[in-house]
Amino acid sequence: MMNASTTEFSIRTRGKGTYEITDEVAGIVLESGIQTGVATVFIQHTSASLIIYENADPSARTDLHEFFNRLVPEDADYFVHTAEGPDDMPSHLRMVLTRTSEVIPIAHSRLMLGTWQGIFVFEHRRASHTRTIVVSVVGI
Amino acid sequence: MMNASTTEFSIRTRGKGTYEITDEVAGIVLESGIQTGVATVFIQHTSASLIIYENADPSARTDLHEFFNRLVPEDADYFVHTAEGPDDMPSHLRMVLTRTSEVIPIAHSRLMLGTWQGIFVFEHRRASHTRTIVVSVVGI
Amino acid sequence: MMNASTTEFSIRTRGKGTYEITDEVAGIVLESGIQTGVATVFIQHTSASLIIYENADPSARTDLHEFFNRLVPEDADYFVHTAEGPDDMPSHLRMVLTRTSEVIPIAHSRLMLGTWQGIFVFEHRRASHTRTIVVSVVGI
Repeated sequence: MMNASTTEFSIRTRGKGTYEITDEVAGIVLESGIQTGVATVFIQHTSASLIIYENADPSARTDLHEFFNRLVPEDADYFVHTAEGPDDMPSHLRMVLTRTSEVIPIAHSRLMLGTWQGIFVFEHRRASHTRTIVVSVVGI
Repeated sequence: MMNASTTEFSIRTRGKGTYEITDEVAGIVLESGIQTGVATVFIQHTSASLIIYENADPSARTDLHEFFNRLVPEDADYFVHTAEGPDDMPSHLRMVLTRTSEVIPIAHSRLMLGTWQGIFVFEHRRASHTRTIVVSVVGI
Repeated sequence: MMNASTTEFSIRTRGKGTYEITDEVAGIVLESGIQTGVATVFIQHTSASLIIYENADPSARTDLHEFFNRLVPEDADYFVHTAEGPDDMPSHLRMVLTRTSEVIPIAHSRLMLGTWQGIFVFEHRRASHTRTIVVSVVGI
């Protein structure tokens, strides 16, 4: 029987960085009862994004954060969208360089992630934020 | 009843910049009759891309355009793919750094976008182009 | 009749570069028997990624490779994740700037790719690797 479900959940971030949500997404897939299909993970924000990233060695995430701090600096002198603070415009650009939606195949009711892959919210603002993620599961 | 539809539409761009298509996509979702599932938005081009971006303050889009002009300059001296003009090779690179497909959850026949999120075609060529977008809706 | 299938295949890469997999994905779509819907292409790795890219002129891929070599250099002095060699950390960053999943609409059992679009594995490591790609097809 074909099925589809859409589920929301929120996480509280504590400033810039990456926050793993693999277990939350896997739990929603299991509860959907869908065995074969796809899970779409979608973040409803323009200053935070999603990535699928190495989840074993935290140093890979340290370098990720530093790379994006350098690739999209906060003090670019040509920014005109500055009303919401120096970390706002860079957060939109870091979001657009990563992902808003990510789609993961499902087999035997499990996410088909590789050994080292985890799903992360990438928070680009300095302050703490509540971020809402929507997970749609479609399949049989 | 499970269902699936694939619909195409085109927009005419007027040179480099971002062009909102949220209403077109929302209309296709509504007409599909699907209440729960996902909408896949896909652009059939390699010199234009898709982004989900802040749709409230136009200054955020001004800075986006300028950021990409600087990140991928037109006059890189190592480019060899130059037969189609100086804005062609940068357009492929700006495309690959953003998105070709974007998937948005649907609930109650509506796109589950966040408050500030809009769907945009990101045109990377200087000249006017007709860009074709495909929207697939899958669900119940 | 609604349907869903999940299929894996592997390719052997021969160091940094792009490897086209359009025919493999198109074959899986055809074999699924699904006429209308979407194909999700997912790569199970964090040091290789997916792109949809110009597949006509090889020089566009030469410039792509060179651009990423410059955007994410191997010798960044702030990298701390260096235990697996100088090409490891850049490979994670090049992956995160491109894509892990890509979703392509299907109509009449065919991928709705544009004229110049091909699906590629983007290998970021210097050594040869076996890369596993998962293709989920969902539709009617």
